[in-house]
Amino acid sequence: MKIRDGRLKKAMDEEAAEFTSSVEFDKYIFESDVKCNIAHTLMLKEEKIVDEEIADKILEALFKLMDEGYDALNFNHADEDIHMAVEKYVIKSVGDDAGFMHTAKSRNDQVATDLRLSLRVKIDEIQISILEFIEGLVELAIEHKNIISIGYTHLQHGQTITFGHHLMAYAQSLKRDYERLKDSYKRVNLNPLGSGALATTTFPINRELTTKILGFDAYLENSMDGVSSRDFIVEVVSDLAILSSNLCKIAEELIMWSSYEFRLIEISDEFSSTSSIMPQKKNPDVAELVRGKSSIITGELMTILMILKGIPYTYNRDLQEINPHLWNVIENTEAILSITSKMTLSINFKKERGLELAYKNFATATDLADLMVKEKKTPFRIAHQIVGRIVNEVNSNDDLDFNKIDSEFVDKIAIKLTGKSLSLPNDLIKKALDPVQNVKSRNVIGGPAPEMVELSAKNMQKFLKKEYDKKIQNNKH
Amino acid sequence: MKIRDGRLKKAMDEEAAEFTSSVEFDKYIFESDVKCNIAHTLMLKEEKIVDEEIADKILEALFKLMDEGYDALNFNHADEDIHMAVEKYVIKSVGDDAGFMHTAKSRNDQVATDLRLSLRVKIDEIQISILEFIEGLVELAIEHKNIISIGYTHLQHGQTITFGHHLMAYAQSLKRDYERLKDSYKRVNLNPLGSGALATTTFPINRELTTKILGFDAYLENSMDGVSSRDFIVEVVSDLAILSSNLCKIAEELIMWSSYEFRLIEISDEFSSTSSIMPQKKNPDVAELVRGKSSIITGELMTILMILKGIPYTYNRDLQEINPHLWNVIENTEAILSITSKMTLSINFKKERGLELAYKNFATATDLADLMVKEKKTPFRIAHQIVGRIVNEVNSNDDLDFNKIDSEFVDKIAIKLTGKSLSLPNDLIKKALDPVQNVKSRNVIGGPAPEMVELSAKNMQKFLKKEYDKKIQNNKH
Amino acid sequence: MKIRDGRLKKAMDEEAAEFTSSVEFDKYIFESDVKCNIAHTLMLKEEKIVDEEIADKILEALFKLMDEGYDALNFNHADEDIHMAVEKYVIKSVGDDAGFMHTAKSRNDQVATDLRLSLRVKIDEIQISILEFIEGLVELAIEHKNIISIGYTHLQHGQTITFGHHLMAYAQSLKRDYERLKDSYKRVNLNPLGSGALATTTFPINRELTTKILGFDAYLENSMDGVSSRDFIVEVVSDLAILSSNLCKIAEELIMWSSYEFRLIEISDEFSSTSSIMPQKKNPDVAELVRGKSSIITGELMTILMILKGIPYTYNRDLQEINPHLWNVIENTEAILSITSKMTLSINFKKERGLELAYKNFATATDLADLMVKEKKTPFRIAHQIVGRIVNEVNSNDDLDFNKIDSEFVDKIAIKLTGKSLSLPNDLIKKALDPVQNVKSRNVIGGPAPEMVELSAKNMQKFLKKEYDKKIQNNKH
Amino acid sequence: MKIRDGRLKKAMDEEAAEFTSSVEFDKYIFESDVKCNIAHTLMLKEEKIVDEEIADKILEALFKLMDEGYDALNFNHADEDIHMAVEKYVIKSVGDDAGFMHTAKSRNDQVATDLRLSLRVKIDEIQISILEFIEGLVELAIEHKNIISIGYTHLQHGQTITFGHHLMAYAQSLKRDYERLKDSYKRVNLNPLGSGALATTTFPINRELTTKILGFDAYLENSMDGVSSRDFIVEVVSDLAILSSNLCKIAEELIMWSSYEFRLIEISDEFSSTSSIMPQKKNPDVAELVRGKSSIITGELMTILMILKGIPYTYNRDLQEINPHLWNVIENTEAILSITSKMTLSINFKKERGLELAYKNFATATDLADLMVKEKKTPFRIAHQIVGRIVNEVNSNDDLDFNKIDSEFVDKIAIKLTGKSLSLPNDLIKKALDPVQNVKSRNVIGGPAPEMVELSAKNMQKFLKKEYDKKIQNNKH
Repeated sequence: MKIRDGRLKKAMDEEAAEFTSSVEFDKYIFESDVKCNIAHTLMLKEEKIVDEEIADKILEALFKLMDEGYDALNFNHADEDIHMAVEKYVIKSVGDDAGFMHTAKSRNDQVATDLRLSLRVKIDEIQISILEFIEGLVELAIEHKNIISIGYTHLQHGQTITFGHHLMAYAQSLKRDYERLKDSYKRVNLNPLGSGALATTTFPINRELTTKILGFDAYLENSMDGVSSRDFIVEVVSDLAILSSNLCKIAEELIMWSSYEFRLIEISDEFSSTSSIMPQKKNPDVAELVRGKSSIITGELMTILMILKGIPYTYNRDLQEINPHLWNVIENTEAILSITSKMTLSINFKKERGLELAYKNFATATDLADLMVKEKKTPFRIAHQIVGRIVNEVNSNDDLDFNKIDSEFVDKIAIKLTGKSLSLPNDLIKKALDPVQNVKSRNVIGGPAPEMVELSAKNMQKFLKKEYDKKIQNNKH
Repeated sequence: MKIRDGRLKKAMDEEAAEFTSSVEFDKYIFESDVKCNIAHTLMLKEEKIVDEEIADKILEALFKLMDEGYDALNFNHADEDIHMAVEKYVIKSVGDDAGFMHTAKSRNDQVATDLRLSLRVKIDEIQISILEFIEGLVELAIEHKNIISIGYTHLQHGQTITFGHHLMAYAQSLKRDYERLKDSYKRVNLNPLGSGALATTTFPINRELTTKILGFDAYLENSMDGVSSRDFIVEVVSDLAILSSNLCKIAEELIMWSSYEFRLIEISDEFSSTSSIMPQKKNPDVAELVRGKSSIITGELMTILMILKGIPYTYNRDLQEINPHLWNVIENTEAILSITSKMTLSINFKKERGLELAYKNFATATDLADLMVKEKKTPFRIAHQIVGRIVNEVNSNDDLDFNKIDSEFVDKIAIKLTGKSLSLPNDLIKKALDPVQNVKSRNVIGGPAPEMVELSAKNMQKFLKKEYDKKIQNNKH
Repeated sequence: MKIRDGRLKKAMDEEAAEFTSSVEFDKYIFESDVKCNIAHTLMLKEEKIVDEEIADKILEALFKLMDEGYDALNFNHADEDIHMAVEKYVIKSVGDDAGFMHTAKSRNDQVATDLRLSLRVKIDEIQISILEFIEGLVELAIEHKNIISIGYTHLQHGQTITFGHHLMAYAQSLKRDYERLKDSYKRVNLNPLGSGALATTTFPINRELTTKILGFDAYLENSMDGVSSRDFIVEVVSDLAILSSNLCKIAEELIMWSSYEFRLIEISDEFSSTSSIMPQKKNPDVAELVRGKSSIITGELMTILMILKGIPYTYNRDLQEINPHLWNVIENTEAILSITSKMTLSINFKKERGLELAYKNFATATDLADLMVKEKKTPFRIAHQIVGRIVNEVNSNDDLDFNKIDSEFVDKIAIKLTGKSLSLPNDLIKKALDPVQNVKSRNVIGGPAPEMVELSAKNMQKFLKKEYDKKIQNNKH
Repeated sequence: MKIRDGRLKKAMDEEAAEFTSSVEFDKYIFESDVKCNIAHTLMLKEEKIVDEEIADKILEALFKLMDEGYDALNFNHADEDIHMAVEKYVIKSVGDDAGFMHTAKSRNDQVATDLRLSLRVKIDEIQISILEFIEGLVELAIEHKNIISIGYTHLQHGQTITFGHHLMAYAQSLKRDYERLKDSYKRVNLNPLGSGALATTTFPINRELTTKILGFDAYLENSMDGVSSRDFIVEVVSDLAILSSNLCKIAEELIMWSSYEFRLIEISDEFSSTSSIMPQKKNPDVAELVRGKSSIITGELMTILMILKGIPYTYNRDLQEINPHLWNVIENTEAILSITSKMTLSINFKKERGLELAYKNFATATDLADLMVKEKKTPFRIAHQIVGRIVNEVNSNDDLDFNKIDSEFVDKIAIKLTGKSLSLPNDLIKKALDPVQNVKSRNVIGGPAPEMVELSAKNMQKFLKKEYDKKIQNNKH
């Protein structure tokens, strides 16, 4: 006896049945659906809405199903969804009394509850992956805290940095990705059960009780909001779009750095491919696909926001179409995150090349200008201009080497531009222009100096410990 | 002996292998891939680049594979893509000489060729579905050319129309969707084969020959462009996003019209669902999912444009990630199109309700104003204002009925506003205000009058015949 | 003396200068830029990096500029940005010593700081608008707590509700929009100043001090992250896309409800237009434009995520292009929010029509089924089917009125389907089918019953008071 | 006397008036609006719907307005749109009779007509810019047809090319962008005038006549379609999103190539900036902003598709919100296209560096494998593997130089892997490994060989001439 038989005279068109089926993605909410039924039935029993004996039989069947797992459903994809399949399973054990399990509950509030239960598990998993990636980055950063590299702006050499400092930039962005999910979790972990089809019920249900059993932080207070709001999904998908954007940035750098022209790193063979035609190639295919796949999350975010556009209260079937996109986002994010983590943590940084690039192309020019400010009280704008002119001179004269210019040379330019000599001591000039010395003196908080990388790494390790501890605590419950 | 063994020392990480796999979507290009190999090998043989005997053996194996189909590949998903799988199949028959099949060809030009071959088939299929939908709409329009309905602007009653006219609006938008695909086809049906990895080859290949064998209109002239351009995909996906947007508009109307408040149509039971909790419900789930799923195409368009963003020449692995999104777009568009077609063509228009609404709410008010312009040379703006005031009077007086106002009443308002009476004949007022008369006089080209719907339908049938004939012609080749 | 003179030999192409100009949007960060310079100079003075006397002169000029406002800059749009314009202003008072103000600071960390300072103000403004909208909704809800309306699922009549309950659903979604911004604020209100161009500085700056002066919660710890991360912008824009999505939903309902077919509400004339040709029209143009403009935020979110895609560390000029889109989002959100609030709070709900619809179309059918469960221990699935069949009978027989069916009629169907009669008391049937009685008994938490709307409104008022108090507290600082 | 006075009792709320105003973007359609009024009035006169004398007065005023231009409107932004402003201007000359100009015309069909008239001008302008860019590229390609560079796949050295060949790849993609617009133009250049508000008119208008006067190819046949379809806008915006995607790809290459690591080109100073803090910097800001701004078009495409989502027939005010996004797309595309063209055509390719890179990193390895196939009938797969192993040996032995390996060395590897020696002649090996020789022999159609670049350039010049001629022809009309 199917639901539709009462009201509709003809069976659904087969193509329409396939078109409206949610079956492919129902596996994501199977466990949550059983849990939700258990909690609801426990409440119905407690509140004496359903007879104890019947409730117990239903519960026994549900616990058995939980044990046996998804495959025990023998899901008949043609004419049912997960809720029907679970009900059918219970009917098999309990008979028609299984129907009492749906007293004061609708597919509308049930699916909203299921989605939230399943999503919170996924958020937790992704958060742990982020923590693990950060952990690896921090170790790598400490290892590379003294390794000189070049920092870019506009893809041009900017200033010298340590590679450890660069890795800590990755770690900081991931930390925010973690915290963003933590905040969104608060809006995911709310209980819509009891909203019914849209207007609660006339049965005296106990919403606090199901909230507690299911481990929700609170219930959603308005039933129309409860069955129709999907902003919690958009929010989490946005978080993951930002996370993916950050991972894409890392992938882009790995691709560029492993080009012949940069050759700052080598990606390990495990994450590389070769060419079917060019035998010399070693290609960063995994990083390229991280870059490519990161766009999926943004595209899905657009899909979901557009699905939601302009649909009125309360439940509309369009909402069902959001779910596959959510799970696709989760799967792709998990894959991108995991592979980027493994790949990044196994790169080999070529320190000679890092140092070579730091020596080339005037990366320490700022510090020559700063020296004029510090030693000679030259206003920065004027110092900036003097150094700009020095760079031009060196550029157009092959015999000159920027790292070897001296006080005399500086004064020649300074006099030409300002009429005054600066008489900077040669040893200070040398120190300013040397990348290694230079980076050591950038030791303010958040700077690239080895001691600051160390400090920042330590701070991050404290954060990691605190969050891991909380996760362990929560899982004990 | 795997491709990577020559250059890389370690096997790919298992997770990375799965991450980079294109296997799930390779089935879409299987046939095209075999065809492409056949054409290439025929050319290699013709140009004597490969020995006739070897070429013939390879060709025999390829034709056999074409016969046996995809399953004959015994696709080992772990370490290969479709190109490797086809090669492996040929090796089994031919031995190492199978390798000659890849002379002067790369996976880069091959996959670009495969995509174009498969996509043109899909375009053709979708075009035929569009023609069939239009055909049904035209028949329905002719059937409903005399049926009065109400045309909305701002979801407010605007003017009276015929329902046939409304259906022809659907048909016109679909016609443009068809023509758009026709134009894009010209840029899809171009041959990149011969581009090699990126820089053609030093073998004396014959690109005109493969172009002819594969039924392409021309070859892509630049090899770097040939392997890396995917604009043909974006273009087709854009076409389908527009098509989906048009289908969504239809779905939205069906949903609204089948509400209790509108009740202009009944969607047939085959395309409706009921509620698990509210036994009275008959829900337009199929239409809602058309509305929801239409957003997928736009989301995928975003994904693809974002994947392409900022990746340099020539082939980058990111390009592979475009393919699943293309096929997902194709599948969803086909499903949305087919189901919208079936559902729309089976609706039942409730003509009494159409007429009832046309009589209500002043839908013929424009024509009262037009009457003043025609008969009394009143400038339209003034006529507009007089009628606006009449509407207000009727609205605030329950005893008045807009369809029954007379010359005297009109003059009362006219004098109040302009100081002059109009003395419109009562029979002309009556004719202007009657929806049925009214719609008949809107008989300019493109208008809702029955004769114009008929004319427009006839024009469309000529178009359909012409396009069907061309399709049949093409398929003969 | 322009910055570029030192290094580049030719002036920028005029078209290129216009193309790269940020001038149009620099007004959004003017105040923040001056504040940032003040805080930085105070710190340089405190740390004795710049001579006290010079610092004081600079500060005097900056405070004067703050007083005089944006127009005092005499912004020369051709060759400068906001940072240059502020510097030029200070030079005018102070001479070349103005250049000391830029010691240990770069446009890269400055603009990142400015953006965060300006954005936090805007978040605050939007939050207050949300609170005010909620406040109005709560009052309106209390006023309409007894007013019967119909709740829809799938745009079909679902169950009876109170209009106050519907309004509280709006309020609940807005509350989450508010809280989302509150969480994002934590990641906006962080200090990047001191990051320098990308690698901090060799001057002994004090980042805690500028953090305190500027009212930031903390500093961003990594300098490369500090100058290049824009995830805080994506996060806020996502929040506003969700807010807009919620406002669009409201607009959609107002449009539909004010159609002739629904006529549940009247939008006040102040928010309506008429037609230039159809004199009878009253169009919900404002609501339509809310619906239309809400899409802007999603489109801009797409733009920003795509701009960020694949650009490496650290600062790249692409980042500048994010700013106009951020401010466009802010402006549009403020406009949409404000107008939706005013329009919604001035609608006139037509209570007779609400009640009329609640009586029509079986909206209380669920409760007849529930009655069978409660009184006769009928499993819900069977009760559901009996009522479905009753609906069909009533539908196909014009003489029957659903609100008047009795026990005998119910039993006729029940026996046909189950072989058993139910013998439900007629008074209970009547009570279940009466919309007014019905809605009163939906008095579980979050339900539509008047008492529950009242409770929910009270809870919300407590929340509003708490948040207002915090805002007032913060503004005292 | 305002339109709304008839029907609505209260003035529009001021904020609502600003919110619904289209004024800022009405300037884009000013000329078209006047033209449209002229054509319509000519037709009304011709068909004797309006008296000749009145029509002539109206026409005189309209032609005068066309002469005087937009500023003559004295646009009162508070309470009018462009249509009202034009009417007001005509009223000033003609008096109340100006109102006859709106007989049988509505703002709905008028704005649809205006948009199409203005857009077709913009398409034409953009097409000409594309042709000019291609023209410059072709010249540059001919100039650089012998200049050796390196072709990349996966950002790794692939094979040697000529720089002229690379430039011709740009040209080919732009040619498709041009043709795409040409196809879309066909669907833009259609006449909706005569559709009226939604249902044409009862006046005997002549749609063929206005179609001819306004230079449209045909009229849109269905009036409901005529006033509400905006697919022509989505289509053009999609075309421009693809164009922008292609321009972004060029910008990305210019940025990368001008990095210190690549240093393949120098962007001219006119399109570069320097840093406010790092005096040595020369930054590719213009290219970065091309990359950034290209995302705008995609974001706007999203906005427009989302605005269209789910809005029913016919005109809804949402449609107005599409227009600013269209014009924003046009403006940004024009800017991006123009600046990319100028910047690209002024780059300086460093030919020594091109050659240096071509010699490094095994770019000719494929040809060594091909040599084995050609000379020794080695199946390609085996040759591929032998060369892969050679690359590995060279890589791990600093004393080896790939460009100098000989027959003996090849055989050592070949025997190890296959048991057989190959005995390739040393002179053929040398020729295969030399980048200059190598590129010359890639002389199949579409290949990088100088003669093929020349041929391809000539073909493109023929195309350019043909299209320019057509443009000149059209403008004569």
